[in-house]
Amino acid sequence: MLYKAKIKITLRPSILDVQGKTVMQALGNLEFDTVEAVRIGKYIEMELNEESEPKAKERVEEACKKLLSNPVMEDYAIELEVVERGQNVEN
Amino acid sequence: MLYKAKIKITLRPSILDVQGKTVMQALGNLEFDTVEAVRIGKYIEMELNEESEPKAKERVEEACKKLLSNPVMEDYAIELEVVERGQNVEN
Repeated sequence: MLYKAKIKITLRPSILDVQGKTVMQALGNLEFDTVEAVRIGKYIEMELNEESEPKAKERVEEACKKLLSNPVMEDYAIELEVVERGQNVEN
Repeated sequence: MLYKAKIKITLRPSILDVQGKTVMQALGNLEFDTVEAVRIGKYIEMELNEESEPKAKERVEEACKKLLSNPVMEDYAIELEVVERGQNVEN
């Protein structure tokens, strides 16, 4: 079965987000002065063929820990869904 | 009212995702050989003070168009929620 994992990787709250602060300042300069905080992370879509949803979840978690995130500084959140044929991620 | 916008910025399907391809190869080398596609985008959390949800939505869309995304190559998706005090994004 083909699964699509939607993964959000975010800096831990205790880590200073320099990129986010810069974007917040840039928004301020563009007169978006109601913005109080910005934090920037990564969003990854991954498709994988696994026999079951728990197996797919396990593999995606492993990929997050080994390659996609830095576990010291980042958290990750995974959503899994079954892909209907014809709506694949193109690559 | 304080709103939190969760914004996903993704490359349009017709745009080649070089970073995603590289990550897919790296996963292959780590024996994640069931992975069929990877696409990488940005995930942004923004907090803003606006009087109403439609106004907040409008401002976030404007920020996406003007600064956060490249409308030629990228799509964006926005989710809005009201922030309960005490669970703010830290910055």
